[in-house]
This record gives sequence, C-alpha cells and structure tokens, in this order.
Amino acid sequence: IRLAHGGGGRFSHELIEQVFLPVFGNEVLNTLNDSSVLNCPDDQIAFTTDSFVVDPIFFPGGDIGRLAVCGTVNDLSMVGASPKYISIGFILEEGFPLDDLKRIVRSTKEAADEAGVLIVTGDTKVVERGNCDGLYINTSGIGIVRDGLHISGDGACVGDCVILSGTLGNHGMAVVTSREDLGFQSRIASDVAPLNHLVSTILNSTESVHVMRDATRGGLATVLNEIAVQSDVGILIEEERIPVSEAVLGACELLGFDPLYVANEGVLMAILPEAYASDVVRAMRKNKYGKQSCVIGRVVEDQKGRVIMETKIGSRRIVDMLSGEQLPRIC
Amino acid sequence: IRLAHGGGGRFSHELIEQVFLPVFGNEVLNTLNDSSVLNCPDDQIAFTTDSFVVDPIFFPGGDIGRLAVCGTVNDLSMVGASPKYISIGFILEEGFPLDDLKRIVRSTKEAADEAGVLIVTGDTKVVERGNCDGLYINTSGIGIVRDGLHISGDGACVGDCVILSGTLGNHGMAVVTSREDLGFQSRIASDVAPLNHLVSTILNSTESVHVMRDATRGGLATVLNEIAVQSDVGILIEEERIPVSEAVLGACELLGFDPLYVANEGVLMAILPEAYASDVVRAMRKNKYGKQSCVIGRVVEDQKGRVIMETKIGSRRIVDMLSGEQLPRIC
Repeated sequence: IRLAHGGGGRFSHELIEQVFLPVFGNEVLNTLNDSSVLNCPDDQIAFTTDSFVVDPIFFPGGDIGRLAVCGTVNDLSMVGASPKYISIGFILEEGFPLDDLKRIVRSTKEAADEAGVLIVTGDTKVVERGNCDGLYINTSGIGIVRDGLHISGDGACVGDCVILSGTLGNHGMAVVTSREDLGFQSRIASDVAPLNHLVSTILNSTESVHVMRDATRGGLATVLNEIAVQSDVGILIEEERIPVSEAVLGACELLGFDPLYVANEGVLMAILPEAYASDVVRAMRKNKYGKQSCVIGRVVEDQKGRVIMETKIGSRRIVDMLSGEQLPRIC
Repeated sequence: IRLAHGGGGRFSHELIEQVFLPVFGNEVLNTLNDSSVLNCPDDQIAFTTDSFVVDPIFFPGGDIGRLAVCGTVNDLSMVGASPKYISIGFILEEGFPLDDLKRIVRSTKEAADEAGVLIVTGDTKVVERGNCDGLYINTSGIGIVRDGLHISGDGACVGDCVILSGTLGNHGMAVVTSREDLGFQSRIASDVAPLNHLVSTILNSTESVHVMRDATRGGLATVLNEIAVQSDVGILIEEERIPVSEAVLGACELLGFDPLYVANEGVLMAILPEAYASDVVRAMRKNKYGKQSCVIGRVVEDQKGRVIMETKIGSRRIVDMLSGEQLPRIC
C-alpha cells in the first residue's frame, strides 16, 4: 500500500475497483456516491459505531475484518435490532501488504454474509509508515428495531434471570496468547461471531427481554456492573455456573488474568423474567453460537448498583468494574 | 490519555462521563447502550462514513473535529439528504494531551450544532505510543432523503451547467502551509464548513439537480473526472471562471500545486439544467458559504468520459484525474 492509495485520485480508484468492489460489490455500494441511499421502511432504526485496533490483526479463530463486522452486528443486535447495513473505514499504514488487505477484505465479506448484512459505504485513508500499526478499521451499522421492543441497560428488574450464551474469555486469551513477544503457545481460538441469529432465536421465544449485552471490552464483570448501576439493582451471579474452558482457565492462571474481565466477541448476556428463562435457554442451545447457554445468576433488590458473586466455596464477594488496563488492543 | 482509557473499564467510563458526555450529551447518547435507537419516519435514508487523519490536527480555520463533522455532513448533503445523526469514533495515541482532546470535542460539538446534527453514538480506542499520530477520528452519518429526489454521479446530462460554490484550494493549502517542517507561512484559512444549509437553498430553488459533489480529496479535477466517466459525458470548464484566491494561487505556485487538484472541505459542485442555473446561483450567493457561487462550465456531448478546460489564453487541454499522491493526510 502506498500513500497515493489514500489520495482520492487514480490510485484510490484502482484500490476500490481491484480490491474492494470485486469482493464487497453490491447494488448500493457500486453507485460510488458520497453517501449510499437505503430503503428503511420502519419507524425506528438502531445506529452504532466501533473502531478496531486489535493486535495482532490475524489471530486464532478470526482476524480484524471478521471482528469489525461481528462487533458492530452484535452492538446492533443487543438493542434487539436486525442488523441491515454496514459501513467500513480503513486506515492503512504505508507499506501494508496488499495480500493481507485482500485476505481481510475476504473475511470481512464472509462475516457480513454470515450475518446477512450489506456493506454499503466505505472509506480508505493511508498514513505514513510508523503512524499506524498495520491497519485500523471502523465499522458503523444500521439495524431495524422490531416494533414495541425496548431493550436497554436500565431495564433489569428484581427477580429477573441472568443468562449467558457461552464460555468466557476465549477472544481475549486467543489474542493475547498469539502475541509473538509473549513466548506462550495455546490452542485457544477466539469466539468472534455474529450473534444476530442467536438474538432472533431469543426474541422469537419471548419479546420480554429486559437487557442484552455482549461481554466485550472489560468482560462480563464490567458489563454487569454497568447494568447494576443503570438499572439501580443488585446482580448476584454464581461462580460455579459460569462456563470457562480448561484452556482459557489455564492461560488466565498462568498470565494472571481473571476470565470475568477478559473480552469476548461472541458471547452475550441476557436479563429477562424468570418465567421465560428455561424456554429461552432451551431455544438458545439449538443455535450454533448458543450451545452452552445457561442461567448464571439473578437480579436482586439489595446491594443496589453492585455485582456480587457466590464463589465455589460458598462465600460472597463483590465483583468490581475493571479498573486500569487489563488487555490493551484486544479489539 | 492512558491505555486504560481505552480498556472499557473504569477509566473508559471516566473519559465518557468527564469529557464526552458534558459536551456531546443528548437524550439519545445518554442512554449509553450498545446502539442508539433513532426515529426515522421516512422511507429512504442516506448513510456514509469517513475517517480523518489530517496532519496537523489543528490548522488555520479549523481542526480535525470540525473537519470530521463537516466531512460527513457534506457527504450526506451531496445526495440531497438532510443530515440528522452522527457517530464518532476516536483512535487516540497513549500520551495524547487531554486538553487537546477537550478542545477537539468542543469544536466537534460546535460544528454539529451549526449543521443541526445530533451525535448519537461513539467509541474510543487507545493505542500505544507510536502507533497513531495523536488521534484519528471516524464519523459516520445518517440523513433523510427527500421524496422523489435522485442526485447521483451518473446523472449529468448534455447541456447541464456546472456550478461551483466557492474559491478552490483553501483547505489543502491551509493544512500544507501550517505544517511546521515546511518553513512556510501563510494566512490561508481552511474553508471547512457544513454545506447542508447551502444544499437546502439549492433544493428549495429547484429539485432538478442532477449531480452534487463536494470537491475534497483529489480536488475539483478528480470529482469532475469521476462524474464524466459515471455519466458518460464530456465536461467543459472555463479556467477564467474558476475562482481561486490570490493567497492560494501564490502558495500553489511556490509549492508546485495545481489548485484544481487541491482538497476543499467547504466547496461543492452542482450540475443541473441550464434553465435553472441563474436562479440557483442567485440563491446560493445569499448563503454564507455560497457567496462566490458561479457557473464554471457545462456538460457536452463529445469527449465522453473526459474533462476539458478552456484556458485563459483560449487553448483547450485535458484535465486528468489526480494520479499519484499530491497531498498526503489532508483530511
């Protein structure tokens, strides 16, 4: 990649025509206007944005392209929206290998296809060597919100169950253990996945979902703390119900991490009335990305604004929000 | 700024609550969910994205924050959409001064207010020192498209007039001449401005606008070439009608640039039937950002796919698309 590829002139056009359009091309994107014009027949839309600076850009189970699509698809899904349209903005470092870019473009497209979203607009900038670490990606997304749905961080009610969709810590530990300078080898693969189909499964089982969140940066602990504060409730979780794989547990112990704080990119947490919980868990387990779904705790009246964990040995401890930096550039 | 400010935990929350929300805060953004839910009563929306890596981040007439808002507002406006909602994603370098961030946040908000758009969702990542040049910003935007409007790069018709809204080259030359290593001083200020109100003025005068484009990266020459190809027409412009300020002309001559290829961030080009041209120009001149509007050329049948300029001395020459990199990191 040369600086000229970001200049807006002939080289930029070549990059678009030879790298992006052959893979991303669709009726909307191909118009190449300053904005894409989209049909949007519903009254309410969801809108979100995320930048991705993960290091390394290729890691077991995925790469920055798949991550960029899934991250935004999942953010849309967490308010109960059906993701429809994605934008993609690349910031490339001069000298970045074109073959790596092509590989990332392909996995971006595959993730978009899996999620059923259309890449409708994009942008490329190139900065001088040394002013970016390979490439950074921003994706923004638009989704359609089902009528009558209101899923929000302030919606948790006393008595609700907390459901988790999968094992914790795979993404964070996959990325960390693949960093060359660590001298550590593992077989942990990232869980990065689009969760919109899993969310549809949940909402088809019941629309009475109060809160949904994917447990990304800061991990499950941080997400639960945010909800406890926003909803002004206590959240009680049981350690022995929280699934963590042996490999992740081992890597966390070795490297000094707590899986509760490690980022996931394919795990969601849903809070909903107890009456629906077992039906929802049963439905979730039929989905590829929800096989290990289970109830891990409940919303309580005391300890407002706090997350409490009942440990395996029967004691209780406060689970605080992540403070300080645990894992930089994990997404 | 510390790496922990991008970790998703307590420091990230402090940054959001102490820097972003006090300035950007509004009913939608304050919900702090994974996505923002927006009302969108119309059938068609416009969607666009842009990353900004301008160097330096503060320049005469603006900064990266104002640029990031205006760039996206203008991209939405160019398809005839009314910009409504903006997302903002920051990539910050560890050690970036908090005061500079606050200053950029303020000018971002001022530009959003001027344009009348709401910042509804955002994201912050922090990378290690040396992996980003201060900060990069991505903005994406959503606008509402007026019913029945179809403004597109392939819409230019033979006989149409080409209207330009202001003098060329101010943004590019303001940025370049403010680079410290150049040892060059000038009084050129960037033209960076939200053009949505100017576009409303045009569309209130006539809805028969065939093409609109803001002449950003690659300058007017590149934009006209894109349109000539997309519409399969020739475009003939007259050199003596194209406004360029004395200061920009002087700097361009000194530094070896051609104003036709220098980026603008507050100048648009509109192509529409000759019958409406004088009314539109008259209306545009009443707008703050359209005072120097004029017809600079017309769409012709021969020379399909090409831009031809009638020079001041009466000869004709082909104006090619920008090839190679003229000005890296101009936006």
